[in-house]
Amino acid sequence: MDEFETLTPAKKKEGIVFVISGPSGSGKGTVIGHLKEMYPNLGLAVSATTRDMRPGERDGVEYFFKTREEFERMIRDGEVLEHTVYNGNYYGTLRSEAERILGEGLDLVLEIEVDGAGQIRRLMGDRAVLIMLIAPSGEEQKRRLAGRGTDSEEVIAARVARAYEEIRQAPLYDYVAVNETDKAEECAKDLMAVIRAEHIRSGRMAEYIHDYFPDDGI
Amino acid sequence: MDEFETLTPAKKKEGIVFVISGPSGSGKGTVIGHLKEMYPNLGLAVSATTRDMRPGERDGVEYFFKTREEFERMIRDGEVLEHTVYNGNYYGTLRSEAERILGEGLDLVLEIEVDGAGQIRRLMGDRAVLIMLIAPSGEEQKRRLAGRGTDSEEVIAARVARAYEEIRQAPLYDYVAVNETDKAEECAKDLMAVIRAEHIRSGRMAEYIHDYFPDDGI
Repeated sequence: MDEFETLTPAKKKEGIVFVISGPSGSGKGTVIGHLKEMYPNLGLAVSATTRDMRPGERDGVEYFFKTREEFERMIRDGEVLEHTVYNGNYYGTLRSEAERILGEGLDLVLEIEVDGAGQIRRLMGDRAVLIMLIAPSGEEQKRRLAGRGTDSEEVIAARVARAYEEIRQAPLYDYVAVNETDKAEECAKDLMAVIRAEHIRSGRMAEYIHDYFPDDGI
Repeated sequence: MDEFETLTPAKKKEGIVFVISGPSGSGKGTVIGHLKEMYPNLGLAVSATTRDMRPGERDGVEYFFKTREEFERMIRDGEVLEHTVYNGNYYGTLRSEAERILGEGLDLVLEIEVDGAGQIRRLMGDRAVLIMLIAPSGEEQKRRLAGRGTDSEEVIAARVARAYEEIRQAPLYDYVAVNETDKAEECAKDLMAVIRAEHIRSGRMAEYIHDYFPDDGI
């Protein structure tokens, strides 16, 4: 844990958005769980939603509460980094909230459908790092999608086809991490390595280098 | 025709050349020492030299022994990844030797003068990853270059000017790692993270993804 306290150099640096996607069956939930335990420098974004505020909830604390019209307008205007629909309501991450966290020097991990990752690339450029998780093989991927044998062949075939389409997007990602069966923690270590490495990419060190010889305007 | 009917993907992957440079005073020797202790998957390249073969030495074991004419011809033809002159003799790493190691799936770490890193980029493209090590600040860099106070102001100024020129090259590198004073091991961990992350960059996973669905030529 404390080995990462030195991860960010002394000078103030912006955080990075790490986008983690993968087809159903890639095990991304488990991997992200391990990652969050390993890495203390993560910011927690308050989500936005269109569901009704419940007693005791406060706007900007549990959620940012938006009307449907407002949420849809924000999606159109690129103010929502990612969103999903659950029980007829929108849930999503506001770009402004992400900016606040990055500005504090914290990183953000977003678990996102493969469809939404390209949108984040467009909105955030190389301030976002895209990582796709995959099962170790097509066979294993299929086995995981077949589940407990309670689903029809057709349902499974549809899942497989969707995973196929999603994995085709891998070249658009920056990294492809293989989640070997029963090794989610190893996979999380791959993601930690990506986080640590991305922080010292030369493009992100430009300001550090600039400050190196302040008199020389390097 | 089921796209998920597949063999276990080919795990065989080519190694990567990690080029580590940095100005005098960046502490790269110490950091690389730690790195080599941490990382078992490094290949050991037999160097080439123009010095005379000594009794008991065998060509291709201790060194590849070359004539001066041959060595210079190989440099001109881009067959030498990096070289230096010591005691009037050339010493260097042959491209063919690097290729042999990468082909075995091992990585190669080369400690190289800043001047030589661009040459490796030209010869190896993105099969080489360039990392610059720097001291934590310009002040600290100057302090390290001043040494034990036995050198003249002029000698020190020349060293500082050279370091300045070298650090200007940082944007041409892929990564810039800060070697904090007395924390060479932390810096080596940064390099380990880079090595781990670079192995799962999507460009290097293309074959893995390709083998995922062997029938579809994805």
